Amino acid sequence: MTTPRFLLRYTSLIEGGLRVALAGDSLLYAILRYHVGLENEHGAPTLAPGKLIRPSLVLFTTEELGGNIEQALPAAIGLELVHNFSLIHDDIQDHDEIRRGRKTVWNLYGIAQAINAGDLMQALAVAQGARAGREIVAALVEATVAMIEGQGLDLAFEEEEVDVASYLDMIDKKTGALIRCAFRMGGLLAGSPIDVVQDLVEMGRDLGRAFQIRDDLLGIWGNGTVTGKPQGSDIRRRKKSLPVSMAFAQACGEDRDLLTEVYFRKEIEDEDVERVIALMERANVRQACEEQVSAHLEQARKRLATLPFSERGIEEMNELIDYLIRRKR
Amino acid sequence: MTTPRFLLRYTSLIEGGLRVALAGDSLLYAILRYHVGLENEHGAPTLAPGKLIRPSLVLFTTEELGGNIEQALPAAIGLELVHNFSLIHDDIQDHDEIRRGRKTVWNLYGIAQAINAGDLMQALAVAQGARAGREIVAALVEATVAMIEGQGLDLAFEEEEVDVASYLDMIDKKTGALIRCAFRMGGLLAGSPIDVVQDLVEMGRDLGRAFQIRDDLLGIWGNGTVTGKPQGSDIRRRKKSLPVSMAFAQACGEDRDLLTEVYFRKEIEDEDVERVIALMERANVRQACEEQVSAHLEQARKRLATLPFSERGIEEMNELIDYLIRRKR
Repeated sequence: MTTPRFLLRYTSLIEGGLRVALAGDSLLYAILRYHVGLENEHGAPTLAPGKLIRPSLVLFTTEELGGNIEQALPAAIGLELVHNFSLIHDDIQDHDEIRRGRKTVWNLYGIAQAINAGDLMQALAVAQGARAGREIVAALVEATVAMIEGQGLDLAFEEEEVDVASYLDMIDKKTGALIRCAFRMGGLLAGSPIDVVQDLVEMGRDLGRAFQIRDDLLGIWGNGTVTGKPQGSDIRRRKKSLPVSMAFAQACGEDRDLLTEVYFRKEIEDEDVERVIALMERANVRQACEEQVSAHLEQARKRLATLPFSERGIEEMNELIDYLIRRKR
Repeated sequence: MTTPRFLLRYTSLIEGGLRVALAGDSLLYAILRYHVGLENEHGAPTLAPGKLIRPSLVLFTTEELGGNIEQALPAAIGLELVHNFSLIHDDIQDHDEIRRGRKTVWNLYGIAQAINAGDLMQALAVAQGARAGREIVAALVEATVAMIEGQGLDLAFEEEEVDVASYLDMIDKKTGALIRCAFRMGGLLAGSPIDVVQDLVEMGRDLGRAFQIRDDLLGIWGNGTVTGKPQGSDIRRRKKSLPVSMAFAQACGEDRDLLTEVYFRKEIEDEDVERVIALMERANVRQACEEQVSAHLEQARKRLATLPFSERGIEEMNELIDYLIRRKR
């Protein structure tokens, strides 16, 4: 599996932008540089950033539509900072001790300072967005609000049975909002007509769903040594991911009793995880989810074909789509 | 002690603005309405909001300088939401179970959802600010960043000895930033000349310091039945407030050993609290802090006299200053 070329093209530009946005003397700024992978915990430079998908999409889309990527950089950085502030807070909420092979912020600096660090990153995201003008701030804030609403639903879902429609609404917010925002910002920054911006957003919706459902599959059937999480980890955490919603929708009799029993209990044993996975495989849930991923990516490909992108641009977006189907983490 | 008149004048306007800003169907919005005191935990309307000092100051200043308070409302609401998001997160960080006589958000809804609720409120604050234009968003974000930096310092100070200069830097950020921002926004919204805005900000700096030092005094010598906190509660929490910084600066011999010993220990007993209070009284720390409050308020009064406020406006600001000297909680 090759990483899409455009994910490599903007890396140094984005890293430079992050460095400027997160420059500051006090401990909090050092924590933020640690979190995004610009520094290690002793403040020494490192290069261990995440995939930078969202800001790369902003810059790629802007460039494809004839805009200026230097001018688009603050918007792209703002979006990446929103994503990263949510990761700092998610890790506290989920008690995750490790991210990208390194200790999470709360694990290294305590919960109080980690809450604070995430708060600062959210504020710095707006400071970046504000440099790009009113329309960009509005888009950024709208996406931030939707993402947090989605996170709120995801947390609330831990206590209830979730149907597929509610699940899709949740991921359209939690994961989809920032991906749609990346494409919208690209269109806005390039000054594209409103119908192009709308098509970009729709393509973002399908890509966001495909991305999240693939993530859900990896959370249950992913290879632990590649994903960094044990197999079945989403079952252990009782995440109401798509496989679970589908299993609840389809299971009956003993299988249904098992699901209800496991998902509303305090502790889940290894044996339960195996039984739930076996049940999902009997119900063909894995295949159904893979079909969903393919269907959304097919939709995205169709939308892509109508966009005024260059030939190379279409090719590179297709590389991203292939990557989203096959990615292992 | 009478509440300053202008704190009552804008209450219903501000409550209406909060209601609009926090309208939303999902649980998170209900949590936010609960937090600001618009609803009880069952979603029934209540009227238990805080003092609304910051948004009242925005509207008051705007009006005094000839601006339109309806147009200023989104900025005022944005500022109040920044203040309130910080309270939601502070309560988690400080493990505070009660605020304004009601359960804190984390205490009622859990830490994960409380982190999320604060995040949403920060984003909604920007959404409000953005309605008032670019300059207001910039002022709001600058103040938010400073406030969070101050909170970061306050948390870091729990582990170290703090001199008076560092203390003042910390409160200028943590408490002062939003108060200065209230005056700055008022000036900006009324289209005042830059030197008037600068004078407003300087007055805000003195008021902010007086406000926080008064708070520090109440945190040690306040009457528990009025403040809602036990006497000496800031000692128990090892907050490096001004009395503590002053005590460290002045104490020597056995007193110094006692302070060092108490402030860097895991658990503090009732007896230690009494010994620290006795030590502070020997060192005249209480009086020195009260003198600081008076000195900053005197400075604020001088600055006030130079501002192009109406006679009534000056009178009402002086009411606020008197209130800040005498307030018991």
